[in-house]
Amino acid sequence: MIDLAANSCEACRIDAPLVSDDEASVLLKEIDGWKLIDNGVKKLKKEFNFSSYSDSKDFTNQVADMADQEDHHPQIILEWGKVTVIWWSHKIMGLHKNDFICAAKTNNLSKN
Amino acid sequence: MIDLAANSCEACRIDAPLVSDDEASVLLKEIDGWKLIDNGVKKLKKEFNFSSYSDSKDFTNQVADMADQEDHHPQIILEWGKVTVIWWSHKIMGLHKNDFICAAKTNNLSKN
Repeated sequence: MIDLAANSCEACRIDAPLVSDDEASVLLKEIDGWKLIDNGVKKLKKEFNFSSYSDSKDFTNQVADMADQEDHHPQIILEWGKVTVIWWSHKIMGLHKNDFICAAKTNNLSKN
Repeated sequence: MIDLAANSCEACRIDAPLVSDDEASVLLKEIDGWKLIDNGVKKLKKEFNFSSYSDSKDFTNQVADMADQEDHHPQIILEWGKVTVIWWSHKIMGLHKNDFICAAKTNNLSKN
């Protein structure tokens, strides 16, 4: 088992390597509940459910604070009852190891 | 001109009337920058741009607080540089006057 959450994001350059499909399969097993989606750009997506709006808002803020600390910013969709987090690396239009690290850190923030 | 933002949301029942297309055209003129989208359910959507992540996060929280006060909860998409807000009424699967009221209130929260 790889402790992805123990890592920090490295600066992502425009010529940084995309995670290969084989690497992605291995890394996905380390981040519980995350799905790989592909809408032309490969991304990691997970929905977190909450029973109160206040909890959804708190979680959104925790993820945003972590993102700012890592200087890597996801799409966070705040709705009644759930927060959806989507990670990808804009500069390389796909998945970098940073995205898996941040997905693992997002799981650690969740009380689900 | 109708001061939509001066209103409060009324409780939305499952049998509440949808805003008609004619009403929507009139009300849309009162909410600067909002677009009507239709992905099977008619919704109001607007992107708000920010030069810092901290400002995006603050705006997300302001909209979420207003939403909780109105007991009407939109989809808020927080990303680097922008916040997208989407209002619709889940119970009636479309647009209620509440959505236009909340869109107007969202504009008032924006410093854009």
